[in-house]
Amino acid sequence: MKRSVARLADGRELIYFDRRDDADRSMLDEREPSPRPPASELRYDPLTEEWVAMAGHRQGRTFLPPADECPLCPSRPGHLTEIPAPDYDVVVFENRFPSFSTNLGIYQDAGGLSEVRPGVGRCEVVCFTAEHSSSFSQLSEAQVGLVMEAWADRTAELSEIPGVEQVFCFENRGSEIGITLAHPHGQIYAYPYVTPRTRQQLAAAARHTGGNLFADILAAERAAGVRVVAANEHWTAFVPAAARYPFEVHVYPHRQVPDLVALTPEERAAFGPLYTGVLRALDGLFGVVMPYVSAWHQAPVREGRDLAYLHLELFSIRRAPGKLKYLAGSESAMGAFVNDVLPEEAAGMIRSQVDH
Amino acid sequence: MKRSVARLADGRELIYFDRRDDADRSMLDEREPSPRPPASELRYDPLTEEWVAMAGHRQGRTFLPPADECPLCPSRPGHLTEIPAPDYDVVVFENRFPSFSTNLGIYQDAGGLSEVRPGVGRCEVVCFTAEHSSSFSQLSEAQVGLVMEAWADRTAELSEIPGVEQVFCFENRGSEIGITLAHPHGQIYAYPYVTPRTRQQLAAAARHTGGNLFADILAAERAAGVRVVAANEHWTAFVPAAARYPFEVHVYPHRQVPDLVALTPEERAAFGPLYTGVLRALDGLFGVVMPYVSAWHQAPVREGRDLAYLHLELFSIRRAPGKLKYLAGSESAMGAFVNDVLPEEAAGMIRSQVDH
Repeated sequence: MKRSVARLADGRELIYFDRRDDADRSMLDEREPSPRPPASELRYDPLTEEWVAMAGHRQGRTFLPPADECPLCPSRPGHLTEIPAPDYDVVVFENRFPSFSTNLGIYQDAGGLSEVRPGVGRCEVVCFTAEHSSSFSQLSEAQVGLVMEAWADRTAELSEIPGVEQVFCFENRGSEIGITLAHPHGQIYAYPYVTPRTRQQLAAAARHTGGNLFADILAAERAAGVRVVAANEHWTAFVPAAARYPFEVHVYPHRQVPDLVALTPEERAAFGPLYTGVLRALDGLFGVVMPYVSAWHQAPVREGRDLAYLHLELFSIRRAPGKLKYLAGSESAMGAFVNDVLPEEAAGMIRSQVDH
Repeated sequence: MKRSVARLADGRELIYFDRRDDADRSMLDEREPSPRPPASELRYDPLTEEWVAMAGHRQGRTFLPPADECPLCPSRPGHLTEIPAPDYDVVVFENRFPSFSTNLGIYQDAGGLSEVRPGVGRCEVVCFTAEHSSSFSQLSEAQVGLVMEAWADRTAELSEIPGVEQVFCFENRGSEIGITLAHPHGQIYAYPYVTPRTRQQLAAAARHTGGNLFADILAAERAAGVRVVAANEHWTAFVPAAARYPFEVHVYPHRQVPDLVALTPEERAAFGPLYTGVLRALDGLFGVVMPYVSAWHQAPVREGRDLAYLHLELFSIRRAPGKLKYLAGSESAMGAFVNDVLPEEAAGMIRSQVDH
């Protein structure tokens, strides 16, 4: 594995993760640089005690370009992309339209009982493969290993940025989920705060009596068995008993680790076959590409690292071939979820596809 | 105003709110009754300490029928609907596919560190008008008054159901939000728990020092002024300083009351003109029907009634003519919102339409 750091014309960092140790990454970005937008401003919502990022510059971001104008494909003569190379294995670069960055602007008081501070942090794009029409589900084990290497590398490095409190690696897939680029890619957000959901899970873990909350959930799901969809020596994938979405799968390592950095090579190697099997099973459910959000829950940089337990939470909003689950009034406004698919039934459907 | 209670063929309750005191509501529902589904089961999510309702029967619910098969229009010969009458002003009835009900089933332990209990409660549909192609924004002041009468009536009555802890009146509008029926209507959920968002707001209110949190926010927004979009003697509508959605408007009465029941006739009368003006302004923004969720935040039945402050929170997911705001990885998985439209800009856009 070779790691090469380059700079795009506008100064953004780009990091290649290559399987071949002799990969040549000296090509330069020959595009005209555009000015880089300032970091968003964070506003404190006194009603919920949460931060919201205001990123007006993102309104102009690239929106579903045709395949031959994809900015995530390798560059070719006549079409220079974000990746100044004729090919790549896995590549990570700073998002051109970041929600968080270290390029700070001027932040004025907003009134309204809110507080304002700069959205310091960093947002990166992870290209999973150079193949525009591929998907994570189709990656080889070696390729997933390289992506995991990139995730762990970025988690460690982004955690060092002053002000960053949490690193979040995730993939949005499918136009139904709102992706603006079809090329197989994920994103990494380095947040300047511990996110509400992580804060909530860690608070639950702190109140839990017995063993570690996450370990106890994993053990209980493995004991119940009825919602387990796939398992190997190092990982178990299950639909949680109180799933919020019609098709939701959580993937836990069998050992409590705070983040991707802490996984052993054996654990990393065992993840790919299990996870891509689950993804292919989801696509098999209705014979259509399943839209999903896949989210790595890692420990914050500084807080709760003893309580946290690395795991992946994936959900799809597709509930039937022509029907989506929408987060409407009850979910969006009150946080009260109603799931139309029983978790045991969803697990049975997914498991039967994994077995195929 | 006349209030008439009837029963549908399958036993569900239906309540007419008529402007005319001589309205005759003796017509019977002549449809064959279908069996009523049992109440959902609630499962406790130990990771978030929240309840999730499992309502498998809702998968079969009516999905975007053509206008001439609308179940919310008045009945006519050859097309019997949910409303067994040739016309109505405002009508409320029990949802045929309820997330919560008092028709309990059998609930077994689910394992996985979850707890299970019956989803006791009630879900109602509120038809705002008999006019299929109308919308809330087009209702007359008298009609909005009747809807408010219905909301208050239902809030008071549903609060009396044993086990109900919160009554939520809301409207989902637009196919982008996931509505399954186009006829102008809202819903009422009587929940068997205090919802996560309400719990969160009340916890923030309990921690707030100074005056009442909500009253202080209202005063601060009125003082800042820049995000106020409309106001009259009894109500102020503003975009909150830390808005999560591209177009979000909160509407507060000027007096702290726990719920719709507690509004004076003058306050009720003043709401309609202000609110429908905001709705029309939203539709005017891009010249397209704006999808939205409009949510009345009322005090829970038993808890926090001294801290709570009735208000309405409305948001749209449309961020530009051809673009929607999706709740993807950061929002859905981590609860971390990124808003692409500055609240002050959104307020200016809405306010300029209200002035028209």
